Amino acid sequence: MKFRDDAISIFRSDNITAVCPEIMEAVQAANLGDSTPYGGDALTKGLNESFSGLFETSVEVLPVATGIAANALSIAAITPSFGAVYCHERAHIHTTECGAPEFWTGGAKLVPFPGAHNRLRADDIAHALGQWNPKRTFDVRPAAVSLTQGTEAGTVYAVADIARIAAIAHEHGLHVHMDGARLANALASLGCSLAEVTWKSGVDILSFGATKNGGMCADAVVVFKPELMETARYTRLRAGHEFSKMRFLSAQLEAMVADGLYLRNAAHANAMARRLGDGLVERAGGEIVHPTEINELFIRLPTPVTDGLVAGGIPIRPLAKDDPRPFFRFVTAWNTSPADVDGLVACAADLAT
Amino acid sequence: MKFRDDAISIFRSDNITAVCPEIMEAVQAANLGDSTPYGGDALTKGLNESFSGLFETSVEVLPVATGIAANALSIAAITPSFGAVYCHERAHIHTTECGAPEFWTGGAKLVPFPGAHNRLRADDIAHALGQWNPKRTFDVRPAAVSLTQGTEAGTVYAVADIARIAAIAHEHGLHVHMDGARLANALASLGCSLAEVTWKSGVDILSFGATKNGGMCADAVVVFKPELMETARYTRLRAGHEFSKMRFLSAQLEAMVADGLYLRNAAHANAMARRLGDGLVERAGGEIVHPTEINELFIRLPTPVTDGLVAGGIPIRPLAKDDPRPFFRFVTAWNTSPADVDGLVACAADLAT
Amino acid sequence: MKFRDDAISIFRSDNITAVCPEIMEAVQAANLGDSTPYGGDALTKGLNESFSGLFETSVEVLPVATGIAANALSIAAITPSFGAVYCHERAHIHTTECGAPEFWTGGAKLVPFPGAHNRLRADDIAHALGQWNPKRTFDVRPAAVSLTQGTEAGTVYAVADIARIAAIAHEHGLHVHMDGARLANALASLGCSLAEVTWKSGVDILSFGATKNGGMCADAVVVFKPELMETARYTRLRAGHEFSKMRFLSAQLEAMVADGLYLRNAAHANAMARRLGDGLVERAGGEIVHPTEINELFIRLPTPVTDGLVAGGIPIRPLAKDDPRPFFRFVTAWNTSPADVDGLVACAADLAT
Amino acid sequence: MKFRDDAISIFRSDNITAVCPEIMEAVQAANLGDSTPYGGDALTKGLNESFSGLFETSVEVLPVATGIAANALSIAAITPSFGAVYCHERAHIHTTECGAPEFWTGGAKLVPFPGAHNRLRADDIAHALGQWNPKRTFDVRPAAVSLTQGTEAGTVYAVADIARIAAIAHEHGLHVHMDGARLANALASLGCSLAEVTWKSGVDILSFGATKNGGMCADAVVVFKPELMETARYTRLRAGHEFSKMRFLSAQLEAMVADGLYLRNAAHANAMARRLGDGLVERAGGEIVHPTEINELFIRLPTPVTDGLVAGGIPIRPLAKDDPRPFFRFVTAWNTSPADVDGLVACAADLAT
Repeated sequence: MKFRDDAISIFRSDNITAVCPEIMEAVQAANLGDSTPYGGDALTKGLNESFSGLFETSVEVLPVATGIAANALSIAAITPSFGAVYCHERAHIHTTECGAPEFWTGGAKLVPFPGAHNRLRADDIAHALGQWNPKRTFDVRPAAVSLTQGTEAGTVYAVADIARIAAIAHEHGLHVHMDGARLANALASLGCSLAEVTWKSGVDILSFGATKNGGMCADAVVVFKPELMETARYTRLRAGHEFSKMRFLSAQLEAMVADGLYLRNAAHANAMARRLGDGLVERAGGEIVHPTEINELFIRLPTPVTDGLVAGGIPIRPLAKDDPRPFFRFVTAWNTSPADVDGLVACAADLAT
Repeated sequence: MKFRDDAISIFRSDNITAVCPEIMEAVQAANLGDSTPYGGDALTKGLNESFSGLFETSVEVLPVATGIAANALSIAAITPSFGAVYCHERAHIHTTECGAPEFWTGGAKLVPFPGAHNRLRADDIAHALGQWNPKRTFDVRPAAVSLTQGTEAGTVYAVADIARIAAIAHEHGLHVHMDGARLANALASLGCSLAEVTWKSGVDILSFGATKNGGMCADAVVVFKPELMETARYTRLRAGHEFSKMRFLSAQLEAMVADGLYLRNAAHANAMARRLGDGLVERAGGEIVHPTEINELFIRLPTPVTDGLVAGGIPIRPLAKDDPRPFFRFVTAWNTSPADVDGLVACAADLAT
Repeated sequence: MKFRDDAISIFRSDNITAVCPEIMEAVQAANLGDSTPYGGDALTKGLNESFSGLFETSVEVLPVATGIAANALSIAAITPSFGAVYCHERAHIHTTECGAPEFWTGGAKLVPFPGAHNRLRADDIAHALGQWNPKRTFDVRPAAVSLTQGTEAGTVYAVADIARIAAIAHEHGLHVHMDGARLANALASLGCSLAEVTWKSGVDILSFGATKNGGMCADAVVVFKPELMETARYTRLRAGHEFSKMRFLSAQLEAMVADGLYLRNAAHANAMARRLGDGLVERAGGEIVHPTEINELFIRLPTPVTDGLVAGGIPIRPLAKDDPRPFFRFVTAWNTSPADVDGLVACAADLAT
Repeated sequence: MKFRDDAISIFRSDNITAVCPEIMEAVQAANLGDSTPYGGDALTKGLNESFSGLFETSVEVLPVATGIAANALSIAAITPSFGAVYCHERAHIHTTECGAPEFWTGGAKLVPFPGAHNRLRADDIAHALGQWNPKRTFDVRPAAVSLTQGTEAGTVYAVADIARIAAIAHEHGLHVHMDGARLANALASLGCSLAEVTWKSGVDILSFGATKNGGMCADAVVVFKPELMETARYTRLRAGHEFSKMRFLSAQLEAMVADGLYLRNAAHANAMARRLGDGLVERAGGEIVHPTEINELFIRLPTPVTDGLVAGGIPIRPLAKDDPRPFFRFVTAWNTSPADVDGLVACAADLAT
């Protein structure tokens, strides 16, 4: 049974979605305004103001081309070549970015930690730093903690957990990076403020995602500590992310935050993931793998359902090729419709009976 | 006297121009089509075909965000960490890219050469390579020659000159990179084919510029040697230039080459530069600094004209802050109008009398 | 009870031992001979011949200052910046070299594997490479397998195990590095030839240790594949390991291999470790942690013995500061005397009663 | 006419000389003493005291294997990846170290300056820094000035000149490195104190050469600013210059400075260079190319003399293979005898008549 013609791409990832209309319009409008190059334009300058307002503190925003660039630039700004970055063992920076942090830092080392549902545990960080002996240069120097909010498992960190991890990190002289490729989704889930989930909890530098939330080709680094700017600015240029026509990136980011679009898009996507999870659990015998806290659903389905969906073109996502109990990752987005969701649920329910 | 309100930005650079309509339309259209991420989409796959057709040979096209990224990626694909890149002493990669090639290669060395009107001389390359002793590891290993077509001085290399330089380079085991940020302008000037000015002359890897020719935020690396692809692909990802929604970059590049847009835009820009040069020479006592072969005019003007234009908001471009004989660099673009040109000429003519 | 005045350093590590007389004499003799700099001297040239004889194939020997340099240079010669190095999770290159391989490669990634007694398992390597998808550039490219012979746990790989791992690696295009900081000890333990344990089993590049076996300040990289030499030679110089007076390193290495000194020293050290292990097991209730196959003894002792030895100045070596069941690592060397061993055994036996 | 059998190596360079007896004895003695590894030993700890006494201020000494390592480590401690190092166009770090500084810094850029007799001119540095615009990230950030004392042309900087260059550098936030591969020779020539020529003049970090002055395989980095130590220590280890048996390097350095050996050796070498220069000028028509201020003589000789010496096996040292007026570089050392000098003068005098 074939679910539908575009089965392979539906729920595949939020990184393939269409650009949302507000952003496309902003890109077009940017073609008419101030064209000062390299970020000297009004749109880019305005970004710092908009984001400073949103974050309730003075910040600097550095638009870059991709989420990998945002992460690598952030990490390079806080990690020397001889530094270590503590992260979850399933963090995107460790598993899916082809060593970009290692490249941008000139050879730093990522130190992975376990943790249920892709969340770092403060105790693990505290323990590792307790073991660290600054006089022993045979170990790389712990320089940064990077946490993903929401995580790659579709979960979120509570604000208090971030604050605890950051406090431990700062106590030992480390900086804190947040990979916020899906920060808007986490925010919509937590219901707190951008300030609370970032700098008020101790985040020093942030990858602010836009591409997965309806953007075209722009993400941003948000810098909370001015002393990180020199390295950040030079490194951005050297890596080829200083756009002559930066206004076209700034326009996307401005449209994303103006008028709360980022939150609306994210809240919708979150709702669709929950709807899909609820439906598959109730009607197709689904078993949730990770709590569905943002726009990603990780779910195991009964073998006939799994087989049927795979036969119908929906890719399974095993942790490993030979995972004995494979599961699906379904990702929803700003433009996922209830009908899309209900269609998949109905299909699975059919297969389950 | 104030020339006009936007005096500071007119003729400032082609890197600030508006996006041309064909490209803006292509970006919008890309929002509707195949959304397979990371270049698996139809538009990106089609690029290889389109460019292979244009170049009359099988090529691979790697879209990236900026011209600096295109140059640095190209150089990283052909230069080991212990390599040397021979280039003109005023090459953009040497003077204006903040050490991007050094960063992407992990510490290669740029070796600058003089040469009138920013053109490398084949004899200088031959001489330097003749001096090189491969057994003497105290010298970095010559690995690449990078030449800019058209040059930063607004001149072009004749096809035969490229071929001669490339032949010498290849004879000693070096690869040849062409920085084609303004390749379309050079092509319009030379009247030859893309094939002739690149791989048929020995170019191994090319930065193909689009941003300065009416694009938005896309340039490309064109790879003529398949064996360079592995390093190129991994390096692009690590530097954060592997776009999830690559179709929006591919759309720009496809629109640029489809139907000869790149050549039309470039030919117009070139014509405007010549018109401006002719006018300023004839009516304002201008003295040409470099031959006006593409869309850049380098010109010295009599002191009263110079002073008047600067007072009117047009920035002078001294080679150095204390250059005793400063000159202007005027850059034209796809959207420079004859009226813009004639207005500036009239203003200068007034000042000259 | 204080065991003896130098308790803290006895059995601490083979990296602190005195230089053995043959090597000290060779260093002095080198002061009289051919002084051509940078390895052009007769001693250094002779090294290639000596080692080629020993290894029964044509090899190139690159003396370097330290074992970390030998490992990092070897890995840099076979791993691109975007590469992954598969190694044991307790490999010295991963845990104790402060990211040297990451630095020398410009950002490669070490991928750690578990394995009893610090031995990589061929099946794990095969499984990981089976999972690897060369088209997926989000993963670093597996480029090298590095194995330590003898291991950091005092064990050795059987020749057949090395051959199996290497065959899998080569099948997937990876190179094989052997960290032979204690290769002589492994060889003495296995009773095979240098050729068998290295290139005949598929090792492409080797860190040949001398410092821990009675040397002063010289280790070496042995290159079995000539095509690795270009990168190796340039990289050695750039890292500051191309000595002007290289003869003083070559002299140490030559003395080490001439007349079988490396094997005699290693066999003695191995025997002392076994003697110590046997004594502590029999007379002090010791429990062996890892098989004692070379010159390292890992042993747990009854609490009164442990406490007594620690009180007497012998450092415990917990895997972690709070290891609930700490153990001792005792390392023997070319100059460990039976009396040293018997003294410690007697002391432990006293504590045990 | 063959001058003598070892003509090719006599006066070739101070980097090939024998180790002087005091240092060889110290190496042997080090085999008996405290063997705590990795610089925890008494000899290494004593080095900091000895050097602090010599330099009349508290310093940290980091022994490394070679002069290239000392330079690269020093530069890496003061130059970020996006930094520029201002140096003379004939500085050893720029022309003869295969891009080691670029490698250790992860891609910094050396910016060469002209200057008679290989001396940087303070005005050139001041001018370049005056041109630098910190807001313009297209330029690498000037981070360091590196000057060689004595220079590669056998000349020295006056103390006041160093102080002037350093003052300008510090004013713009740059650090100052001194390549002191031949610092002892410069000191012997100037007759000032180590303190005056280094930190009192504004030097922040120093390569202290020993190998060329009678050492075996040890040079050192001397750090005057404690805040540079963290990067320096980690980087030294990562580059493979943290010796387990560091005492053998420290012994060389201690012997070199104890009792003024470094000055005695250097003064002798300087005297031999002057004696050779005087003889060749007076008796063979020599023409001095650079002032003979340390232990290097650069001299042009009449064609018959030049031809005769070359025929006799003494290598000419052209600036370039096709230099129309080649000259000789003769280097003297701690063990150059008056008879060696007089023999060459006599030979040249014969050829001249």
